[in-house]
Amino acid sequence: MTIEINTPSSTATLKNPKAHLTGAEVRKLARANLIGDTGGLGHGYVQCNLLIVPARYADDFRRFCQRNPVSCPLVAETAPGDPTVPSHIAADCDIRTDLSGYCVYKDGELVATKTDVLEEWEKDTYVAFLIGCSYSFEHALLDAGITMRHREQGTVVSVYKSKIPLNAAGPFSGAMVVSMRPFKADKVKQVQEITKKYMLAHGEPMLWGDEGTQALGIDINKTDWGQPTNMEDDDIPAYWGCGISPQTAVMDSKVEGTFMAHRGGYMLVTDLRVEDVCA
Amino acid sequence: MTIEINTPSSTATLKNPKAHLTGAEVRKLARANLIGDTGGLGHGYVQCNLLIVPARYADDFRRFCQRNPVSCPLVAETAPGDPTVPSHIAADCDIRTDLSGYCVYKDGELVATKTDVLEEWEKDTYVAFLIGCSYSFEHALLDAGITMRHREQGTVVSVYKSKIPLNAAGPFSGAMVVSMRPFKADKVKQVQEITKKYMLAHGEPMLWGDEGTQALGIDINKTDWGQPTNMEDDDIPAYWGCGISPQTAVMDSKVEGTFMAHRGGYMLVTDLRVEDVCA
Repeated sequence: MTIEINTPSSTATLKNPKAHLTGAEVRKLARANLIGDTGGLGHGYVQCNLLIVPARYADDFRRFCQRNPVSCPLVAETAPGDPTVPSHIAADCDIRTDLSGYCVYKDGELVATKTDVLEEWEKDTYVAFLIGCSYSFEHALLDAGITMRHREQGTVVSVYKSKIPLNAAGPFSGAMVVSMRPFKADKVKQVQEITKKYMLAHGEPMLWGDEGTQALGIDINKTDWGQPTNMEDDDIPAYWGCGISPQTAVMDSKVEGTFMAHRGGYMLVTDLRVEDVCA
Repeated sequence: MTIEINTPSSTATLKNPKAHLTGAEVRKLARANLIGDTGGLGHGYVQCNLLIVPARYADDFRRFCQRNPVSCPLVAETAPGDPTVPSHIAADCDIRTDLSGYCVYKDGELVATKTDVLEEWEKDTYVAFLIGCSYSFEHALLDAGITMRHREQGTVVSVYKSKIPLNAAGPFSGAMVVSMRPFKADKVKQVQEITKKYMLAHGEPMLWGDEGTQALGIDINKTDWGQPTNMEDDDIPAYWGCGISPQTAVMDSKVEGTFMAHRGGYMLVTDLRVEDVCA
């Protein structure tokens, strides 16, 4: 495969030679399982969380997303039984193979982690839901000269399961999952202003500071996904909605049947340009 | 004023001769301050919560609603400075006079309760937001033969300020407000099925049962608005989003400036038929 690396237009690319891959190029690498975490890849392309649900649950799950748009911003869904992603979202994309890591849940229990879900797909009629991801706005912060600790430290962003309940819909309920990035006080307003327009990528932080940490009922040093972030004393944590929430809902609700999802951080990178859909 | 009472088509009307008023008729009564609580009035017409914000906050407040659609389902908004409600929502309706009770907030503090806000309207440029209300789906439960305790007991529905944070947007943040109606276990599924389509009226319950009560962090016997509900031992509380949430957000956030809102229960009854907008 030939991959052209364009001239970097942003500081984000300086440390990451794969930052300027297109969405289609990232998907090729993911399909071949040559990459894992997609943070920083496909700079400027919309990245998505995935939840594949038995078609009989599609209406309830769509409504679950609509009732929790900050945690589950709905980007697209597939036709029942059709593994093809709508072509304006991601061309020539097979949802069963084009991520490099999947989690398989049965009756609410994680039963397998796989690199494709071709086998599972045959056992029922499924609908795949693509849900926005906060990876999609990180380039905008970097472009504004706002660095993020997990990028500086080379860690995966800190993710927590909170005590805050999502709004139930049909059989789906569960606790909200959040990602956390710390900033100095003088950046708070700017972070809010920059990220608020990216509503398909969870938008601006939903909670801030120690008050946010308390409301979430979490220990900031104990991540449930990703890695802990080394913080300075005057760092202010900013908490964003996170598209892992649907997976915890599947587990918390113990919904009967087989569900498939992306592996944390191993997102579907689409052909959508972030600036085109979040202006 | 001549008011025609049509033949009752539902059990809801049997106890309430004003159930079959049209939205326009209810507004006339409200304008003349001849009614207060609008529960059970204008059977089948969409009832709305109100928040009037200085125009400079309109974008942030609209986004606040979009990020919290279960608490703040957005039905309509007015043009900046224009007190007229869009005519397809409520014809010949002046938002400053056509509710029978208003609360006025200054810098986050409740400073007055009034029957119109003509005087306040002159002091700034305002945008009025209409937000759906759970009164709009009660007729559907009654039509299905599902009674509600507050209707049986002749009390105002129980409303609580919870410990659950809403998703922040710009200067707006705060704790979620919920309304509660108890049901027997054998009605739970039916209540969920019936109310889920009324997304502009908060849709299906967001939380259920003792687990919900705990997640909300409330004492079910201590209401913050409305009145306590006498419950039987095997009653299961169902919690819905509530459009008083924006008022608590204005207070919790201590947003600078003058804000106006409806008085709890004294809703704007529109010309929209519930079944037309929530099918």
